[in-house]
Amino acid sequence: MTKQRKFLLSEAEMPEAWYNITASMANKPLPPLNPQTQEPIGPEALAPLFPMGLIQQEVTTEKWITIPDEVRHLNSLWRPTPLYRAYGLEKALDTPAKIYYKYEGVSPSGSHKPNTAIAQAYYNKQEGVKRITTETGAGQWGSALSFACQHFGIECEVYMVKISYNQKPYRKLMMNTWGASVIASPSDKTQAGQKVLAEHPDSPGSLGIAISEAVERAATDEHTKYSLGSVLNHVLMHQTIIGQEAAVQMEKAGDFPDVVVSPFGGGSNFAGIAFPFLRYNLEEGKNIRCIASEPASCPKLTKGVFRYDFGDTIGMTPLLPMYTLGHNFVPAPIHAGGLRYHGAGVVVSQLLKDKLIAARAHHQLECFEAGIQFAQAEGIIPAPEANHAIATVIAEAQRAKEEGTSKTILFNLCGHGNFDMAAYEDYLSGKLQEHQLTDQEIQEAIAQIDTPEIV
Amino acid sequence: MTKQRKFLLSEAEMPEAWYNITASMANKPLPPLNPQTQEPIGPEALAPLFPMGLIQQEVTTEKWITIPDEVRHLNSLWRPTPLYRAYGLEKALDTPAKIYYKYEGVSPSGSHKPNTAIAQAYYNKQEGVKRITTETGAGQWGSALSFACQHFGIECEVYMVKISYNQKPYRKLMMNTWGASVIASPSDKTQAGQKVLAEHPDSPGSLGIAISEAVERAATDEHTKYSLGSVLNHVLMHQTIIGQEAAVQMEKAGDFPDVVVSPFGGGSNFAGIAFPFLRYNLEEGKNIRCIASEPASCPKLTKGVFRYDFGDTIGMTPLLPMYTLGHNFVPAPIHAGGLRYHGAGVVVSQLLKDKLIAARAHHQLECFEAGIQFAQAEGIIPAPEANHAIATVIAEAQRAKEEGTSKTILFNLCGHGNFDMAAYEDYLSGKLQEHQLTDQEIQEAIAQIDTPEIV
Repeated sequence: MTKQRKFLLSEAEMPEAWYNITASMANKPLPPLNPQTQEPIGPEALAPLFPMGLIQQEVTTEKWITIPDEVRHLNSLWRPTPLYRAYGLEKALDTPAKIYYKYEGVSPSGSHKPNTAIAQAYYNKQEGVKRITTETGAGQWGSALSFACQHFGIECEVYMVKISYNQKPYRKLMMNTWGASVIASPSDKTQAGQKVLAEHPDSPGSLGIAISEAVERAATDEHTKYSLGSVLNHVLMHQTIIGQEAAVQMEKAGDFPDVVVSPFGGGSNFAGIAFPFLRYNLEEGKNIRCIASEPASCPKLTKGVFRYDFGDTIGMTPLLPMYTLGHNFVPAPIHAGGLRYHGAGVVVSQLLKDKLIAARAHHQLECFEAGIQFAQAEGIIPAPEANHAIATVIAEAQRAKEEGTSKTILFNLCGHGNFDMAAYEDYLSGKLQEHQLTDQEIQEAIAQIDTPEIV
Repeated sequence: MTKQRKFLLSEAEMPEAWYNITASMANKPLPPLNPQTQEPIGPEALAPLFPMGLIQQEVTTEKWITIPDEVRHLNSLWRPTPLYRAYGLEKALDTPAKIYYKYEGVSPSGSHKPNTAIAQAYYNKQEGVKRITTETGAGQWGSALSFACQHFGIECEVYMVKISYNQKPYRKLMMNTWGASVIASPSDKTQAGQKVLAEHPDSPGSLGIAISEAVERAATDEHTKYSLGSVLNHVLMHQTIIGQEAAVQMEKAGDFPDVVVSPFGGGSNFAGIAFPFLRYNLEEGKNIRCIASEPASCPKLTKGVFRYDFGDTIGMTPLLPMYTLGHNFVPAPIHAGGLRYHGAGVVVSQLLKDKLIAARAHHQLECFEAGIQFAQAEGIIPAPEANHAIATVIAEAQRAKEEGTSKTILFNLCGHGNFDMAAYEDYLSGKLQEHQLTDQEIQEAIAQIDTPEIV
């Protein structure tokens, strides 16, 4: 038989704990601040929105958090996920580099998002929460949470950005199939929504407005909590099972990565694959290069500033120390909806500040070209978000070829593109626009930030 | 750790040969007839349309056909596919039955179809074929063949029924992504298409017309061959790797099926999962009940007649001995496009005639209800075709509960429904129509058949 493509694990080999990278970091992240007093806030400030089980994970200093058996069993519907050697792509690129990818698209909703959705629904259920609200843009996160809530018998209310609600009905239907109610945002169900509708009856909505609606619902109903799909520490932690599995699988492949690559939106995708490998750097002096791949139209890591900013557009959250383009920055309407976020999670921001990770930005057309090349070589049509990682991988593989050196590249193929074919249609028909962002536009966005600088 | 859900195989455990069930059958299928002479035809009659490698497989009496290494290696992109124990569905049904499913939706195009597409493209490539034509309805088969042809550097020309071409653009885009040209049928590229357009400029097309166009292109160009996605013996044979893998996986699960269930369109889905288990019945005296699940709106197995009929609507193929509703029968426009075929493959028809297999028909609404129940319990949204098998499985599991007996049920989850969400939308919004077919309508369809009876 020919060369082995897939490296699989049994359910018994699923990780037993989530990894909290802050325990390994010499420089800990700075604390979040109360926007009014600009004093550090404690965990109790989060209690109206999240169950205590998750708040504890958000602030814990423990390195390993045991994964509850019930979460592991539900994860086993699709986990462990496969690790692939990308022979097809290597051949297409004629590169001496060895390319591996971890494939998270085998989950129920087709991405890595259920890894945290199930954990979050579990802890909410433990504390008797009856309803969880959240926002969703393109729908990847909302569908993951719908699936998780339905399993635990929790009502799920998803505020979906109105323009996506109208343009992407199939993601909405996926959520309905799993029993969630999906509300086009802005809606008349909340004061925040009513206010927007009064001023702009035809508002297409935005992630910022949808967050406001979901948060308001949770803050004003004692049986309702709110859930976030990235950015926060507990969310990033839940994703570390990806990299932990990948490390064991790379060992089975008799290999080890020199470079680890992941798409970057708020940080959960990157944390998932990269944090367990960064642990080798932080604790064992290894030198694995971990690269976060972001859109050139939303370059907070490569062109943003490190300072305190709000996590949401409207300014309802605590102030977070992060790389940001400003909470008022509105990214261009690229198809990688999951990467259209103005800031980076706190932990990832500290790692970048300390030069422990790298970042790279790619233009939209380059990303779709990379995605098509991958689909032809490997048979999986990637989500537009994943195409950013593939663009970085191709660049790294081409550099290896130019330099005549081999190296081993691992990346997170975070999801399939089955619900994103309209984006491929735009690309294939030449309709897809590039969204160039000038340095002046970036400077103007940053100049508008009115939140505290980090001294 | 909790109960094991998934039973995986390594690539080294992939089957090494396809299984030809005719070698195990006491009553061999009757020969195809020349429609003009009504005499049996030989393999040479198929030469204009198919490469000799496939024609040999169509008529071989060998029991095992070695799978070429290159085919196995390309299959290893997604094979072996997982076998799941459906704990979630068992719990939802509160049944003593044990339910397992083989999941073929992990393939590049999302169904079992690439199992034969890759093999067919391989044998065409061996004989220097430059272009392969085919027809597709909803697009599942066309996308599988597009992927396979792209890998082997063969041009692929897909005639897609015009109404589907317009209604289901994402399947078309998937084919484009893999480099195929997709032509709305009827087209002006063929005489058959021109003729239809001259008479009916606004024709929405049909599978029959699309077949005519694809066959005409192959018959009139020496570098072009034609490819079929079901019905024929070599196609069914290529799918038997599904059931061979499942048998090994059931053994790993410490179990063995009493009942094997599969959706039924032309027979390749059913052959894939059931033939390797039928071998135990035919050769070792076992008594596994193999059930083909068909739509009540296209009930050739449960209400059709066993006689010679054309494989296509227009009457271009040889006459085949099969269960049929008549080649002029036009099934109602149900969402399970892959099951809207008037006849059953020759080998399956002979098995049914000899009462070696069973069949069951389900109405559309019952199927979608079953599919939603499955999606909520197991996290995978099934293709509408697959919902027919799930409906049978649920009925069997409920009977086990009523009888208070346990039994082990295995079914083929032939594909995911990610490209069929419009069908789920119709169901969830109450717009989905039932297509009741009266016995009188069936009798009228059968009465129209003008091809030879089998005496």
